[in-house]
Amino acid sequence: MTGSPPVPFTAADYRARMDRAARAAADAGLAGLLVAPGPDLVWLTGYAPTAVTERLTVLVLAPGRSPVLVVPTLEAPDAAKAPGADALTLRDWTDGKDPYAATAALLDATGRFGISDNAWSMHLLGLQKTLPDTTYASLTDALPMLRAVKDAAELDLMAAAGAAADATYEEIRKVPFAGRRESDVGTDLADLLRQFGHSQVDFTIVASGPNGANPHHEVGDRVIQRGDMIVLDFGGLKDGYGSDTSRTVHVGEPDDEEQRVHDLVREAQEAGFRAVRPGVACQEVDRAARAVIDDAGYGPYFIHRTGHGIGVTTHEPPYMIEGEEQPLVPGMCFSVEPGIYLPGRFGVRIEDIVTVTQDGGRRLNNTAREMALVD
Amino acid sequence: MTGSPPVPFTAADYRARMDRAARAAADAGLAGLLVAPGPDLVWLTGYAPTAVTERLTVLVLAPGRSPVLVVPTLEAPDAAKAPGADALTLRDWTDGKDPYAATAALLDATGRFGISDNAWSMHLLGLQKTLPDTTYASLTDALPMLRAVKDAAELDLMAAAGAAADATYEEIRKVPFAGRRESDVGTDLADLLRQFGHSQVDFTIVASGPNGANPHHEVGDRVIQRGDMIVLDFGGLKDGYGSDTSRTVHVGEPDDEEQRVHDLVREAQEAGFRAVRPGVACQEVDRAARAVIDDAGYGPYFIHRTGHGIGVTTHEPPYMIEGEEQPLVPGMCFSVEPGIYLPGRFGVRIEDIVTVTQDGGRRLNNTAREMALVD
Repeated sequence: MTGSPPVPFTAADYRARMDRAARAAADAGLAGLLVAPGPDLVWLTGYAPTAVTERLTVLVLAPGRSPVLVVPTLEAPDAAKAPGADALTLRDWTDGKDPYAATAALLDATGRFGISDNAWSMHLLGLQKTLPDTTYASLTDALPMLRAVKDAAELDLMAAAGAAADATYEEIRKVPFAGRRESDVGTDLADLLRQFGHSQVDFTIVASGPNGANPHHEVGDRVIQRGDMIVLDFGGLKDGYGSDTSRTVHVGEPDDEEQRVHDLVREAQEAGFRAVRPGVACQEVDRAARAVIDDAGYGPYFIHRTGHGIGVTTHEPPYMIEGEEQPLVPGMCFSVEPGIYLPGRFGVRIEDIVTVTQDGGRRLNNTAREMALVD
Repeated sequence: MTGSPPVPFTAADYRARMDRAARAAADAGLAGLLVAPGPDLVWLTGYAPTAVTERLTVLVLAPGRSPVLVVPTLEAPDAAKAPGADALTLRDWTDGKDPYAATAALLDATGRFGISDNAWSMHLLGLQKTLPDTTYASLTDALPMLRAVKDAAELDLMAAAGAAADATYEEIRKVPFAGRRESDVGTDLADLLRQFGHSQVDFTIVASGPNGANPHHEVGDRVIQRGDMIVLDFGGLKDGYGSDTSRTVHVGEPDDEEQRVHDLVREAQEAGFRAVRPGVACQEVDRAARAVIDDAGYGPYFIHRTGHGIGVTTHEPPYMIEGEEQPLVPGMCFSVEPGIYLPGRFGVRIEDIVTVTQDGGRRLNNTAREMALVD
């Protein structure tokens, strides 16, 4: 399965998005955009094929021309039911025909095109072979901010997804931790996310004790012990928009270093949040959070960027990372999630989704960031 | 989630597969293979990252050199636990560094490489930019048969997956159909597949009455009626290997045309199966099945190819399609699934997975192909 379930937008909404994307392409000097199944296509058309296969499906957006969705004949009936279908033309191709030739007929043979990051390489190679004088850039390189700025309706959906993740955190604190496997708590988290309206659970990280020192550990068979620090990081899609929040809890009373490291991460997360305002470069959010941890001597243990964008996926531009000079714009949504990872011992991460407002930032996660003690 | 769960093979098995792939690359004149997360990587290393993101993970196989898996630092601990990890070297890269430069250092700067079909275009573009004198071919174009021939252990797993799908079909015939929604029967199918050992359900098509005329209809809200023809097509992964079978059932007694069309599809499926033997071109399987339907005048209503390969995915080369001249080789596994689709009325499809033996073919699905009458 790919993409997300259809969201409650109309064909007019999708037409407006496609127009905006085509204009952005023209402004960037592109002859058009090639949009593959996945988040870009969901956002632009509401269409998510049942399965992504070797059969080419691609939306062609070119400035000044009507959008065309190239689809396998077999899938045309499904595509015709997409919420954005009335805003585009379907062009189907049948098994045995050359889908690249069909697509090439819609393209400027010497143009430069933006193509979805996750478009299959086999399809890009097919187009490069059919039209050898075309050139391509990934959408993240060419138009990184295409989906980054959310409108009011999208922000409402993002806030609702955040509130559902917060409700999940409030409930998970009540379950027993000590003596249960990480995977059991992970199942609880997934159940709660669904109970609070998520249609898709993307990750349920329960990283206890030394497992917490691996930022991408999901859940394992480890039985949680009294005295464990536990990183909880979970999210998914609710009504087509993403949630992602982390809190670090402790089974019983923490020792001094655990408390100090947790306080430090909380301070870093606060510093990152306070750096958010329109016009500030993404890297400044990273720098603000990182400075707190560096200054305390834990810099080598903060081994990832500070944040990533979120919207119809739980992972997208903009990235809060050194070197990213993109200025923040009201409506952008991204995580602020510094962490400290002490190999073989424990990890701490605190994460909120933040949206940029006219004069600062607004958190879409609002549960207490102090270390919660659990049983 | 991507790929499939780890399968019960050892590091030695994965080393042998990587050696075989590197030799095949050399024989095809390639300087190496670039293998992305997904079925190729699962097959070659047993590694399936928790999530496929914009962070580059790629296995570099070059003839005469040890395999190297380039992974994000965050994911290195997970990759190190993969069943094939002892057969390769991990090279990790940290957020903020250039993963394409790290990969390019492993590549012949003027070489031609095979790259996984589903590798993200953004990664291919990153490599093309870093090494402008390299060229690429999709693995399906360059080495279409890399995973196509299954060894004895794989065939056992394929047969077990087929038997589990057959058990599902025997059970689903006992449930009530009339008066229930397609989606309810689809849920039953998924539950049964899991009950019979599937870890992943890829599709559960329940296409009743006129919905049967859309070969890719999955399940809908339509309430099944007495007198409906119903296409059932379901499968997924069991112990890392795929199942995929279709039978067409009828609620109560069929009329003459329904019976005639069903008989015809059964005859076509039998003809396709009988065409299977080593050395025969894939397209001959398609032609044999299609001839039966063409001769009866229903040719325009058989609107897809006759079959597709199956293994660690439920959809892969070889394809049984006009124009595919690849000769069949013992150990290949693929579907034989002709169908007739009468718009607005009904559809019929009958599908078995078939493996090529020394002197013919062997079906991995063995339930009755006659039209079953259900309640």
